[in-house]
Formats: sequence, structure tokens, C-alpha cells
Amino acid sequence: MDLAHLAARVERETRIAISPRDIERILVALLSTEDMWRIAELARIPLLALCAGLRALAAEGWVRWDVGLVRLTDAGTELCARRGLSPVPALDCPRCGGRGIEPRPLASLTEAFHRVAADRPEAAQEFDQGYVTEDTTIARVAQMWRHGDLAGKDLLVVGDDDLVSVAAALTRLPRRVTVLDIDPRITSFIARIAREESLAIDVLSHDLRRPLPPSLARAFDTFACDPTESLDGFLLFAGRGLTALRGRGGAGYLGLTHAEASLAKWRAIQGRIVAWGAAITDLRDGFHAYVNWPYVETMRGWEHLPVRRVPGRLEPWYRSALVRVELVTEATVDLGTIDGNIFLDDEAATT
Amino acid sequence: MDLAHLAARVERETRIAISPRDIERILVALLSTEDMWRIAELARIPLLALCAGLRALAAEGWVRWDVGLVRLTDAGTELCARRGLSPVPALDCPRCGGRGIEPRPLASLTEAFHRVAADRPEAAQEFDQGYVTEDTTIARVAQMWRHGDLAGKDLLVVGDDDLVSVAAALTRLPRRVTVLDIDPRITSFIARIAREESLAIDVLSHDLRRPLPPSLARAFDTFACDPTESLDGFLLFAGRGLTALRGRGGAGYLGLTHAEASLAKWRAIQGRIVAWGAAITDLRDGFHAYVNWPYVETMRGWEHLPVRRVPGRLEPWYRSALVRVELVTEATVDLGTIDGNIFLDDEAATT
Repeated sequence: MDLAHLAARVERETRIAISPRDIERILVALLSTEDMWRIAELARIPLLALCAGLRALAAEGWVRWDVGLVRLTDAGTELCARRGLSPVPALDCPRCGGRGIEPRPLASLTEAFHRVAADRPEAAQEFDQGYVTEDTTIARVAQMWRHGDLAGKDLLVVGDDDLVSVAAALTRLPRRVTVLDIDPRITSFIARIAREESLAIDVLSHDLRRPLPPSLARAFDTFACDPTESLDGFLLFAGRGLTALRGRGGAGYLGLTHAEASLAKWRAIQGRIVAWGAAITDLRDGFHAYVNWPYVETMRGWEHLPVRRVPGRLEPWYRSALVRVELVTEATVDLGTIDGNIFLDDEAATT
Repeated sequence: MDLAHLAARVERETRIAISPRDIERILVALLSTEDMWRIAELARIPLLALCAGLRALAAEGWVRWDVGLVRLTDAGTELCARRGLSPVPALDCPRCGGRGIEPRPLASLTEAFHRVAADRPEAAQEFDQGYVTEDTTIARVAQMWRHGDLAGKDLLVVGDDDLVSVAAALTRLPRRVTVLDIDPRITSFIARIAREESLAIDVLSHDLRRPLPPSLARAFDTFACDPTESLDGFLLFAGRGLTALRGRGGAGYLGLTHAEASLAKWRAIQGRIVAWGAAITDLRDGFHAYVNWPYVETMRGWEHLPVRRVPGRLEPWYRSALVRVELVTEATVDLGTIDGNIFLDDEAATT
């Protein structure tokens, strides 16, 4: 049984595009760790495909799990040696968490953000929420800052359980920050913080399945969002964001995972974003780390896990790439009103 | 005179796609530094557009240069304040140079590479050469390593004045490393090092304007190159590389600058790479730093510089993004033999 057959089997089973190389990624992750969440982090493929892949590897006698650990068998270890596979080296910079951002100039911003975010609303499954760590929000804002996308700019945040609007406004750099969210807990929390801290934030309640209010079209320099990861859902966030930009030079920040998006989906997303008039200017994989959400045991992927341990709240395994796009022509997005659930596709695992 | 008119003027003059946001980038760079090479580094737009932009800003009375420095005038400083512009913050991680790679595990590899690269051939204008620093080559190889694109893999290096083949082979991880280059100084240097260090490197002389020899088609897991940056030239490197990959899961590493490629060109490149069957998995801007080449005074952009100072050999201003692409379908590249000069387009500045 070679890896191509295994990949084909996983693909049939999950309807997720998986290559032999993806199966190999699972093996490489297993060479580094026996912990399920760390495997998920290291393998960087859709979680459901990872689960199916582990089962397929187990059926071949290469992997087994017991006492809460997922392990290569002796035969699996031999397979890895035969293929010349070696563990993922530990090369992440301990100073900046692999993000390449020096945190010291951000100390006072970070402190202020920690203070106001202390009693934030918890992530809600209803809206496919799951927020990033506070340090990640700061790093994202720092990236916007260093790109010149904050100072003197009008910023739109599309869905904001990450509280990007608050961190961005705390820099006192943007001209205006506007938040769209459908969750009244989020909108009222941000509105209260904005009042208390005298932040220039406008908060609007909006269902993204409907087009943006006309007053927001072509009205911003920058948008930020962390889309749901179904293909249609992701494109909805990206498309609405692009139509909110004033035009060429306007930039958008998005998050994109491996856990719920195959590279085939990445490619489809990238093709569409390029067709809509933007270039991808940054794609920093693993940039965002997420706080584990409280509904992990009822999420779609849970039952697929070979080992079911609730990860610690601050034990990140779910990460996403920071993607920055910039319009190089007028945006040509043609998206009307969408009906129904935008959170689900075959690769969705944490909804 | 607003920035849109200025951008349009620069665009007409240079035939390079430039937005008002690009003009703003020049202003932001000027808020941080008065040194021409540092401005070029910070502005991150095509060098020729930068030069034209500086002249246009000077014609408006916002910029002037004398005693070797490029400066905002009082009116220019006021303009920046009015637009809410502030200097680029110094957020690069001092530990990993903003690359997010911890260098310590690479110490012995780095030492070995420095030793063998000591008498490398100098960059030749004839082939649009200009190599990266040795630390950059190590960082690029580290990125391939952490992505699993080295260990047990067949690696093709397409044009190798950066000596990626040598650094990769020194890890003893790849199964086979093959180098294609047209410059006999490069091919003979690498062949000699491979003999002396017992490295598994095959060296072939090849003009990339011709299709790859049939023996190299669909024969590799990974390719690496640092393309010339004309649109046709870049696509030639990327396309030849993709056809050399065995198929899905095969990965390619490329370098792409702002200095000689507008975002419109980035977008055109990205659209083509996606159409050929790949996804972009990493785009880490500023990842590669270049050693200044000896022909700086005869390069195309030299005469466009408002201030002409030969930069120090190890005073990096020319940087490029590391771009990693991965095939998610069979490659569908249709590139035959190309005639003539592949180095030049309107944006070329260092050829």
C-alpha cells in the first residue's frame, strides 16, 4: 500500500482534496510528537482529512493510539526511515514566536489591550466564532501598522470577535474604525469599550450574507476580517471587504487555516481574489494562534478525533495564516445576497 | 496637486502601474530616513517608479536632495502630517531578522556554508545575477527544511548564483540535488565544491529559454529559483520549475521583489501560477537580502537615481519576498522555446 492509494482512500472518504504529500505530512508530524493537538498543528492539513488519514494509517499497521497518545508503530517508524522523513526541526524564533515582530515597542498598547479585553464575550458556536490570542491581535495590528494601513486610515473590521477594532483604535492611529458584526454581545461590548476609552469606533449590526450598506461601499482604506472557512463563506468575507475599499492601494487582512481549508481551497480562494482585482502581498503561515473555544466537544470535528482530549484554553493548535491582499485595479466583486448557512462545507471541522 | 494626479503622472512617465498609495509609501519612507538606499528598501515599489515619484514630489516642492541626502521639505512634512502619515515603526525582530527562524540549530550548517562559499564567483550582469547573503541562503534552505521539502527529496535548483544547491546538499537531507545554470563559472564552481565536499549534486548547463531536457520533466519534489523579474522571465522560471515537479504536493520556492515588480505584476504572476495548478502557501515579504553586486553603476536604474552613491557590499537595500507555491493539480504549463532577452521589461531596474 503506497501513500498515493492511502491519499485516494482518504479523499474518497472525506471528499477533501488530499495528496500523498499530505499523508507524508502526517507521518512527519508523528515523528515529532504523540499529542493529538500538536499533530494537528504540525500536519497543516484539514483536520477531518487528518483524522481519516490517521485511521487509514492505523489500518495499515503504521499508527496506533492508546493512553491518550497517537504513535507510529515500529512498522510506521521503518516506513518513515525508508522514505527519508525526519522530524520537523524546531526553528521558530523564541523571541517573536516566528512572526518576526519585535514586541517591545508595542508594550503599552499590549498592556492597554489586555486590560480592556479582560471581560470579552466568550466565543459562540452559533456564529462560528473562535478568537485569536490577545498577543495575536496585537501582532496583526502591528502588521497593519508596519504596512502603513493604520495611520490616518479608515479601517473596516468585518466580524470582530478578535477585537481588532479595539486594538487598532487604541494605537490612536486610524482616522476611523468601523465594526460590522451580527452578534449583539460583540457589538455592545465594543461600543461600551469605545465609550469608556474614548475610541473612534463606529459599531454596526450587519448580517454579512446581505451586501454592505451603500454608505460603506468604497469608503475605507483597509479592511480586516477572520472569515469562516467554507469556500462560499470565505469569499463572502473577502468580497464584501474588497467592495468596501476605496480602490487601488486599499488593503485587506484575512486569516486562512490549513485545519479547515485544503490547498485546493486556498487555490480557489487565491484565484478569485486575483480575479476580483487584488494581489496577495503577504501570506505568513501560522501567524495567528487561537484561544481554544468552549464548544470544542460539540464541534463537527470532535467525533472524528481518534483521541478526545479537550485542549487547554491557552494550548494553541488551531492556527491560521495572515493573508494581506491589495487592490491593484478597481474591485470587480459580483456578490449579491446569499441564503442559508455559510459556515459549512466538506472541510469544515470546528463549526 | 493631489497624490492621484502625481501617481498618474509617474505612471504615464514610467509605464509602471502606480497608485496614490504607492506615492504615499514614498512619503512614509522619507519620514523614516534620508538615505536613498534605505528609502528604496522601505518604499517597496519599483525602483524606477520611486525615482520618478521623487522627481514628481520635488517638482511639487515637497522633496529635495542635496549633500547626498533625500529630504522632505517643510511643505512635504506638513503634507505628511495633514494625511496622518507616520514613520515605519521598527518592529523587525532583532533575533531572527524578521524571518521567524531561530538560527542556533543551523550553526554548523552555516559555518560549513560560509567556508565553501568563500571564493564564489562574483555576480555577472550578463546573466542578471545578484546573489543573496549567505545567511539568506541558509534561511531559505531552513524554510525548505521546516516545510519538509528537503529530507529525502529530489531538489532542482534553476539558476544558482545563490548556491542554494550547496547549502541544501550540506544538510545531507535531500536524496538528490540537480542544478541548472547557463553560467560556466557557476556550474564549474558548484561541481568543484560537490567533488571536494562529497555532495550529491548534479550540475547541468542549460539555457532556460529552451524547455527542460525530457529527463528532468516530472522528476523532482521541490524546485528553487530566484527568477529574473520581467513578467515573461519570471513566468519562464516558475513555469519550467512547475513542469519539473512530479505532481500534486510538489513545491517551488521563488523570490519576488517590489523593486522591479509592481503589485500589478505580482497579480499577473499569481494569476498565472494559480492557473497553472498551484496554490501560494507562503509569501514572506523581505525574506531575502541581497549582496550588492559589482555592476551597480552600469545597471539600468543607476542613471535614474537622484543621488548616486554606490552602496556598500553588505548594505542591503534590495530585498525580495520568499514565495512558496505548491501544486494542487497536475501542472498545466504551456511554455515553448522563448527567443531573445528575458531580462527586460518596463520595470527592470538592476539588469
